[in-house]
Amino acid sequence: MKKKDNNVCSGLKVIPLGGLEQIGLNITAFEYEDSIIVVDCGLSFPADDMLGIDLVIPDVTYLKDNIDRVKGFVITHGHEDHIGALPYVLREINVPLYATRLTMGIIENKLREHNLMKGTKRKVVKFGQSINMGQFRVEFIRTNHSIVDAAALAIYSPAGVVVHTGDFKVDYTPVFGDAIDLQRFAEIGKKGVLALMCDSTNAERPGFTPSEKTVGKIFDNLFEEHKNTRIFVATFASNVDRVQQIINTAYKFGRKVCVEGRSMVSVIETARNLGCISIPDNTLIEIEQMKNYPDEQQVIITTGSQGESMAALSRMAGGMHRKITIGAGDTVIFSSNPIPGNEKSVTKVINELLRKGADVIFQDAHVSGHACQEEIKLIYTLIRPKYAIPVHGEFKHLKAQAKIAQSLGIDKENIFILSSGDVLELRAENAKVTGKVPVGAILVDGLGVGDVGNVVLRDRQHLAEDGIMVVVMSLDRGSGQLVAGPDIVSRGFVYVKESDELIDEARHIVDEAIQKCLDRGVTDWGKLKNTTKDTLSDYVWKKTKRRPMILPIIMEVD
Amino acid sequence: MKKKDNNVCSGLKVIPLGGLEQIGLNITAFEYEDSIIVVDCGLSFPADDMLGIDLVIPDVTYLKDNIDRVKGFVITHGHEDHIGALPYVLREINVPLYATRLTMGIIENKLREHNLMKGTKRKVVKFGQSINMGQFRVEFIRTNHSIVDAAALAIYSPAGVVVHTGDFKVDYTPVFGDAIDLQRFAEIGKKGVLALMCDSTNAERPGFTPSEKTVGKIFDNLFEEHKNTRIFVATFASNVDRVQQIINTAYKFGRKVCVEGRSMVSVIETARNLGCISIPDNTLIEIEQMKNYPDEQQVIITTGSQGESMAALSRMAGGMHRKITIGAGDTVIFSSNPIPGNEKSVTKVINELLRKGADVIFQDAHVSGHACQEEIKLIYTLIRPKYAIPVHGEFKHLKAQAKIAQSLGIDKENIFILSSGDVLELRAENAKVTGKVPVGAILVDGLGVGDVGNVVLRDRQHLAEDGIMVVVMSLDRGSGQLVAGPDIVSRGFVYVKESDELIDEARHIVDEAIQKCLDRGVTDWGKLKNTTKDTLSDYVWKKTKRRPMILPIIMEVD
Repeated sequence: MKKKDNNVCSGLKVIPLGGLEQIGLNITAFEYEDSIIVVDCGLSFPADDMLGIDLVIPDVTYLKDNIDRVKGFVITHGHEDHIGALPYVLREINVPLYATRLTMGIIENKLREHNLMKGTKRKVVKFGQSINMGQFRVEFIRTNHSIVDAAALAIYSPAGVVVHTGDFKVDYTPVFGDAIDLQRFAEIGKKGVLALMCDSTNAERPGFTPSEKTVGKIFDNLFEEHKNTRIFVATFASNVDRVQQIINTAYKFGRKVCVEGRSMVSVIETARNLGCISIPDNTLIEIEQMKNYPDEQQVIITTGSQGESMAALSRMAGGMHRKITIGAGDTVIFSSNPIPGNEKSVTKVINELLRKGADVIFQDAHVSGHACQEEIKLIYTLIRPKYAIPVHGEFKHLKAQAKIAQSLGIDKENIFILSSGDVLELRAENAKVTGKVPVGAILVDGLGVGDVGNVVLRDRQHLAEDGIMVVVMSLDRGSGQLVAGPDIVSRGFVYVKESDELIDEARHIVDEAIQKCLDRGVTDWGKLKNTTKDTLSDYVWKKTKRRPMILPIIMEVD
Repeated sequence: MKKKDNNVCSGLKVIPLGGLEQIGLNITAFEYEDSIIVVDCGLSFPADDMLGIDLVIPDVTYLKDNIDRVKGFVITHGHEDHIGALPYVLREINVPLYATRLTMGIIENKLREHNLMKGTKRKVVKFGQSINMGQFRVEFIRTNHSIVDAAALAIYSPAGVVVHTGDFKVDYTPVFGDAIDLQRFAEIGKKGVLALMCDSTNAERPGFTPSEKTVGKIFDNLFEEHKNTRIFVATFASNVDRVQQIINTAYKFGRKVCVEGRSMVSVIETARNLGCISIPDNTLIEIEQMKNYPDEQQVIITTGSQGESMAALSRMAGGMHRKITIGAGDTVIFSSNPIPGNEKSVTKVINELLRKGADVIFQDAHVSGHACQEEIKLIYTLIRPKYAIPVHGEFKHLKAQAKIAQSLGIDKENIFILSSGDVLELRAENAKVTGKVPVGAILVDGLGVGDVGNVVLRDRQHLAEDGIMVVVMSLDRGSGQLVAGPDIVSRGFVYVKESDELIDEARHIVDEAIQKCLDRGVTDWGKLKNTTKDTLSDYVWKKTKRRPMILPIIMEVD
């Protein structure tokens, strides 16, 4: 039981439940006495060693344990790393959602897919609007990002105000809507802000991120240079502004536009319904209509700019797409940068396209959606927070922002690089990490949520490296003697048809070892299995310098 | 049988046996009538989908089939992608090796490991020296690269001269030895060159690659800035010049140097024995001596700059190294760039180091070993070849060099982007691809060379994604009835202890299906196995949306 001392104010607790050890999995709880609100609920994509895993969601045990106090989710913008875990988490934490228009539109697409629309309370919030959530009030502030309708949050609590930027950049000339509401940042800052949680993604990059509009001019130039070819533009499915600009340029050059890739079609449709994108009449065409237009009157906007092997671009490059094949004479523009880790697969697609004879443009037709160093400094200078809590990015990015904060005069001890699970308690007079809540990454594989853990992953890794040898044998229940086997079946180890000799000899050696055990009266199955493992493992290592998984199975027959 | 027409000269055949579909695996045969010579014999590192594979070597069937004509291997430099397959290939193609001093020294380290020293004829060649190999004469020309003693080759044949640059850059102020022998390039060019095979790695990059010496100045500055900390420098094991410069700077600042990482220790020892590196007395110390010196008097040069998890740097960062742990107060300099594909693992190590409190410098302390666009233009302008055959690099790099060659006035039809296995026949009057020889990538896994192929890799991929379910059952030989099982054992599928119910139900369903078959008098094991597979697969897919490998095993007992 918590007892309130009249002289001691409650602190505002900031509890990141994910997102600080990797890109993605963004979810942060804010807690003040009986009220908890949660900012974002993102997924992350599996690390290289998470074999077979589809996606990763945060462990929300802490929210489940405190469900009575949880007032709702406040969502900053509609990217997977901020909303992707909602369909899983909402099943356990059924609280209201608050988000801006397009963000909510994209969330609703997900809820529909997961049959969660009916059961979920949702409220669309306008920029400048505040919502009351228990002891909190949350104000949505317009920012700019690589998706329309991104918001920063001013989180008001009795202990003070925290400003959370979400993912953002400063774009004075955005394609859709207004520039980031710097006046409001200044106003809030002037009144006094306890803590700033600011996007660190580009904190290592000096200068300013260019305006999204600069990409439009590049499209104009590229379309001018490639007047006589079909043009493909690959970009991120959710970058509505980018698609808008491609459409604008296409229209200018009298080209029809076909959008290809399921996720992009879905986002564009949502954006169109909400008026976040404006497409001139008779500009969009269906894939089936393409044949009615000459090449130089076509633009195909497509997913797959990260080299994803199942996305439209890879399939069109590899001749695996049912309707479109990219080949000689086509121009392909990558309007994207490879996300770290995707460099190789992007290059693979580029090489494939070049090999097919296409002209490939993979530089300059992209700008980042995140604030560089000067923009981060601008926000700090407008907000003038007492405490700085860098968020969004890998450790090196958080560290880089910490350096910036320090250079702007924030005391080193007032800068907090948190780990997921840390409970940071903020008060005007001081701030410190006062506890730890359970956190973790839950693996989603097919329908299974959390049924694949470290043991299974370790087995998959082992199987992937060296394959498996299954050794089966039958023992007579009465006599304990071998009545069938040992037989050896392998998968992923060697090409069996050419390794008869190896497998035969292996079987022979296991047979001998088992017979010796049985002759000595050993009947314990555990011992027999261990003998099988050790004998076979030694033999195989000696012969091949490999360590396949060895799985002995004993059956008992009457 | 080949008949020689007096009016038709034989062509010079250029046959790349690898290296054009990926980075690495460099090996090219040159053939003129009864003589074949082979330039380089490299390995490549496994692609992401080659699970469990250690390395990849080229298929040299063509050389084996023509062994009587093969005069020897000519090696350009001592990097793995140019020499790494020798220990495997020499076992089948035992012909003499020709290489410069350090290159041969590094090759000999390999031959010793593989017990091949005695059986292999070797000749160290000096720059400017020529060797006669059947109808060929091969001249070694000095170049610069990220390893000492790199050579270009002028390959003289009755049909004309081919110049092969190997991997190279133009360094007017190299750390060791002389600058690339541009005069000799000019002289050979002046006399007329049939074809130029030029390094394409940096053909997308404008300008000039800076001199290796520029890195030395950066070390000086960094050491000056970090006077009071222990300094770690991570770089490529074989970059002797880089190590030389680190040692020079260390000496200047009165620091002792410890070299850590097996491969680096070996290369440095070889380079030292051959006089390719000069280390002041009392500068190198053993790891055990480090404790005798204060932090600010130590430099540790280490492998692992690519984030390799087993290399010294990763182990020192992760606290897994038996002697050294990197922590707060240490400075770590990455004197390298991530090789494409390694970005993520490099970042992982950087984050780990920062988390431990180390100061990490990962920019600016590196220059490339490959020629940029202006250097490529220089070589083309000195050589003025009739034909251009871009080599070394991915397809996009070859294509970029082809563009450069065209911009320098080489006819488009005289530029050949080859595929491995192409037989390009060169004559003064014309050149064309006239045939195809067998080529391929042979996978090395442990001691196995070529025993892992597509079937095994596909199985490994399947096992990695979804694991395996083994279903065993015993049938009575006489009655054909089930006497034991079916039992199900899984690995890498679900965490078994928490999935009893699923496995139980699966067993029940398989049992039913098998009984039904047996009741209908089905005795064919193939049918029983297929029934098991289909039944179990359907059930598991319905329940989990996963497709584990299903391996039915039937035993027969009397």
